Amino acid sequence: MKYVSSFHAILETLRAGSCSGTLYVTEDEHRRGPRIREILEEAERQGMAVRAVPASKLGEMSPEHRGVLLAVDSELRRALSLEALCGGASKVDASLVFVLDHIEDPHNVGAILRSADAFGVDAVIIPSRRASPLTDAAARSSAGAIAWVPVIQVNNLRAAVDALKSAGYWVYAADMAGAPVGEHPMSKKALVILGNEGKGASRILREAADESISIPMRGHVDSLNVSVSAAILMYEYRRAHSG
Amino acid sequence: MKYVSSFHAILETLRAGSCSGTLYVTEDEHRRGPRIREILEEAERQGMAVRAVPASKLGEMSPEHRGVLLAVDSELRRALSLEALCGGASKVDASLVFVLDHIEDPHNVGAILRSADAFGVDAVIIPSRRASPLTDAAARSSAGAIAWVPVIQVNNLRAAVDALKSAGYWVYAADMAGAPVGEHPMSKKALVILGNEGKGASRILREAADESISIPMRGHVDSLNVSVSAAILMYEYRRAHSG
Repeated sequence: MKYVSSFHAILETLRAGSCSGTLYVTEDEHRRGPRIREILEEAERQGMAVRAVPASKLGEMSPEHRGVLLAVDSELRRALSLEALCGGASKVDASLVFVLDHIEDPHNVGAILRSADAFGVDAVIIPSRRASPLTDAAARSSAGAIAWVPVIQVNNLRAAVDALKSAGYWVYAADMAGAPVGEHPMSKKALVILGNEGKGASRILREAADESISIPMRGHVDSLNVSVSAAILMYEYRRAHSG
Repeated sequence: MKYVSSFHAILETLRAGSCSGTLYVTEDEHRRGPRIREILEEAERQGMAVRAVPASKLGEMSPEHRGVLLAVDSELRRALSLEALCGGASKVDASLVFVLDHIEDPHNVGAILRSADAFGVDAVIIPSRRASPLTDAAARSSAGAIAWVPVIQVNNLRAAVDALKSAGYWVYAADMAGAPVGEHPMSKKALVILGNEGKGASRILREAADESISIPMRGHVDSLNVSVSAAILMYEYRRAHSG
């Protein structure tokens, strides 16, 4: 069972209608402020079960609670399989997919999902192991976008990249030594590999890339934050293929 | 006295040579790993005073320490005054300045400074009061860029914007209702106002703007993180005016 604690994330998860679960709210009605009341109204609209409990009970479930908690028993994201994504690829003209190669900080994962929602990224692929799980911290950093963006967890990132390559995606690895992005429009079916915060993308994934791309920089510190790089590449794709 | 604790921020602050202070390091030489040794070498190159102290003393100075702390008695940034920036404006062909209108989260401030360094922003202007101070958390999020980017603290943001406008800057307010950025190149002398995370830019600053700009979005969640928006606007400016 997972608990979502931030007002924003709870509200967006309810709105997305993408999970089943229970909303727990403080039984002390004086402690239900306007944001909690807004959440209760949305829960009612979505037919979500609501239970009023003592604040101490909420504290046991998650110390992060602010008077309300959403307990979700399905995954916190829209269901999409790699097979479905590959299968649909031939039917679409344009698609943008990101592969997160063992990004560790849940805030970075959440921030990337928030931008992925804003820029209409079709899917974000993450490894099943050794990466930031989709935690409450990630949900919070995503400002609720975690409920909207299709996230696919796979055992083997390289196999997933290869499958999407066969399905017509052009594979980019974000790499400081790559060609400056923006000089040529990105491919309409683009898959972008983003590496770990410290180590960058793993060799096995870089070898699968058709092209390395970088964001032109002119500073003293040697890199951008990975969630900032992600957002700029999403922006650049949309700039080239708007509409 | 301020303490800088992250390895990266200490190293970049030393390299920037922009402050005076003392480097405190654990007297237990077995606890000095390669990153601490790299910091000690840089301190020597820069002629910074170094003092070996017990770990307990470091803990008293800052619980965040990892064996080394930089105590700075000047401000953690390159000195630049608003007057100097305005005075220099007539002599340069292109310049990019950001105004942070009461951005509260030090991680956002730090992330914006990191991107500002990467994209060569000429100055970041923040209010003297009610905003995130340039804390250790901000230094950490900036990955050390806080030492490189000229930050100007002013009592009156509106007066600063007006002064830069008189000096030839075109003033943009980032606003979700603004014109999509990227359709026209940004002005070569551009000042961008970024508002508070929750409330956006204050009315008095929006009124000073020549133009409102937005980043085109297509998602469910209603906005980008402010540090992501900042980075995209910096990228867009550089894309239009590279070289």
